[in-house]
Amino acid sequence: MNQQMEIICIGNELLIGKTLNTNAHWMARRTTSLGVIVKRITVVGDEVNEVASAVHEALERETKLIITTGGLGPTFDDKTLEGIAKALNRKLDVNEKALKMVKEKYETYFKEGRMERVELTPPRVKMAALPEGAEPLSNPVGTAPGVMIKVDGTFLIALPGVPPEMEAIFDEAVAPLLKKQAGNVTFFEASIYADGIMESALAPLIDQVMHDNPHVYIKSHPKGEERKPHIEIHFSTTAKDSKTAKNRLGKAIVQLSELVQKSGGKIKLQKKKQ
Amino acid sequence: MNQQMEIICIGNELLIGKTLNTNAHWMARRTTSLGVIVKRITVVGDEVNEVASAVHEALERETKLIITTGGLGPTFDDKTLEGIAKALNRKLDVNEKALKMVKEKYETYFKEGRMERVELTPPRVKMAALPEGAEPLSNPVGTAPGVMIKVDGTFLIALPGVPPEMEAIFDEAVAPLLKKQAGNVTFFEASIYADGIMESALAPLIDQVMHDNPHVYIKSHPKGEERKPHIEIHFSTTAKDSKTAKNRLGKAIVQLSELVQKSGGKIKLQKKKQ
Repeated sequence: MNQQMEIICIGNELLIGKTLNTNAHWMARRTTSLGVIVKRITVVGDEVNEVASAVHEALERETKLIITTGGLGPTFDDKTLEGIAKALNRKLDVNEKALKMVKEKYETYFKEGRMERVELTPPRVKMAALPEGAEPLSNPVGTAPGVMIKVDGTFLIALPGVPPEMEAIFDEAVAPLLKKQAGNVTFFEASIYADGIMESALAPLIDQVMHDNPHVYIKSHPKGEERKPHIEIHFSTTAKDSKTAKNRLGKAIVQLSELVQKSGGKIKLQKKKQ
Repeated sequence: MNQQMEIICIGNELLIGKTLNTNAHWMARRTTSLGVIVKRITVVGDEVNEVASAVHEALERETKLIITTGGLGPTFDDKTLEGIAKALNRKLDVNEKALKMVKEKYETYFKEGRMERVELTPPRVKMAALPEGAEPLSNPVGTAPGVMIKVDGTFLIALPGVPPEMEAIFDEAVAPLLKKQAGNVTFFEASIYADGIMESALAPLIDQVMHDNPHVYIKSHPKGEERKPHIEIHFSTTAKDSKTAKNRLGKAIVQLSELVQKSGGKIKLQKKKQ
C-alpha cells in the first residue's frame, strides 16, 4: 500500500483569500508523482492553537507523513513551531545547529554589504528555536531553516511559506524521504476530452469501465455547462513501472472512447481552445 | 464578534495536485469581504467517510457556517450528500423540490434539442437525493442544485465544484445569508511595499505599530529573497464603515512607513515590477 500524507498550510492570507494556495497545489502534485497519496489538506491561520489542533488531529489519524508550510519566519505571527511544540507537548529551545545555519546566512548578507553588522536579534534567534528533538533542514534560498521531527512512526516536517524556499527544501530534503516511503510505485495519468455527451449520460459508462479496469481511477471534469458539454475525462493509476501503467490506462481509454462514441459523443485528445 | 465559517472542498483532483483550488480562494475572498471570518479550509477526497469526518469535525468545533464545494454531480464519485447524511445521521431521500429543479433543467435541454428525450436516469435522480430536512438551492448555470441544511444553530451549505455554478449559487443564495450573519461589519485592507529592509529587521517595527493600533492586523509577505528584500506589508481591519477603516489603516501605514524609513528602508505604494 502507498504511504499516506497530510499537508497543513498556515497563514491568514490563505483564509482571507488574499493568496491563492499554490503551495498546496505544487506539493500535492510533486508528492503524488513520487507515489505518496495526499489524504487531506488543511489550511489554518496564524494562531498557536489552530496550528496545534491541526497537527494534533493529523497525528490522531495516524498519518505517517505530515508536512506544514508557512509560519517559520522572524515575525510575531510566525507561529508554526510554537504550535507544533504545543501539539507534541515538547519545549521550544534554541537548536545549536539551526542557530549556526541562521548565523551563517546573516554573515553572508553582511559580507555582501547588505547589513552594517551581524546581530542575532530576538526575531532572528526565533527562527532557530525548535521543538525538542527536531532536526533543522538547510534552506538554500532564504534564512529560516526547515524542521523535521520524528514522532513515533510519523515524520513531521515544517517548511517555509515563501514558495521558492519551500520548493528548494522539499526537493533537497523531503523528496528523497518520500520516494523511500512510497516503496517504488509511481503515479501515472492521462486525459481525453468528450464533446456532445452530458456528464449524466457519461456517468454509467465510467462506472462500467472502472468495473472492468479495477486499477484505473476515472473522473469526469465538466469544462463547459451541462447544456454545452465539454468534459475532461481524467484517467489515473499507480504502478511500479510505466509499461504496466500505460497498458492499463490505454485499455481503459480505448474502452471508454468506444462507449462514448456509441452514445453519440465525440472524443478528442486535446482540450478545446476557449 | 464576527461570525466564523469553515470551507470544505471535496475532490481527488485537489489532492493529486491536478487542480489548483481557486474555489477556496474565491470563496474565502468573497466571504471575508462580507465580514465573515474563514477559520479553516479542509480539502478531502471523493470518499463518503472522508466527507463525513470533515463535516463532523467542523460541527464539533461549533462552527456556525459550513460551506462545502464539489461532489454534487451525477457520477459515482460525487459523494458529498452521502457524506453529509452520514455525518448528520440522516437518511438520503429524493427531495421533490430538488427533483422538480433537475427535471426542469433536462426539459430545457430537450427543448434546445440537446437530448432525444427527457429521461430521469438514476445518475440524474441522484442529484435530487438530499439528506432529510435539506432545502435545495436553485442552480442557475448547471444541473445539480445546491443544498442547505440547518443543523441546530449551524447552516451547512453544499455547493457544486464547477466554478461558475458554485459562484452563481453563492451570489444568489449564500451571500445574503452571510451578510445577515456578519452583522453589518466589513473587511478592509491595503498594502505597501518596503525595499532595503530585511523581514527580520521589520519584525519589531510591526510589533510596535500593532501594539499602538490594536484594531489593525499587519502581516509581512517577502516577495524577493531575504538578501534582496522586497516585502509586501499588508494591513487589514474589520469595521462598520469605511471612514473608520480608512482612518485606522491610514494611521498605521503612516507610522510604519516612518519607522521603516528611519531604519534605512524605502516605502513604495506599488509592487515592484518583476
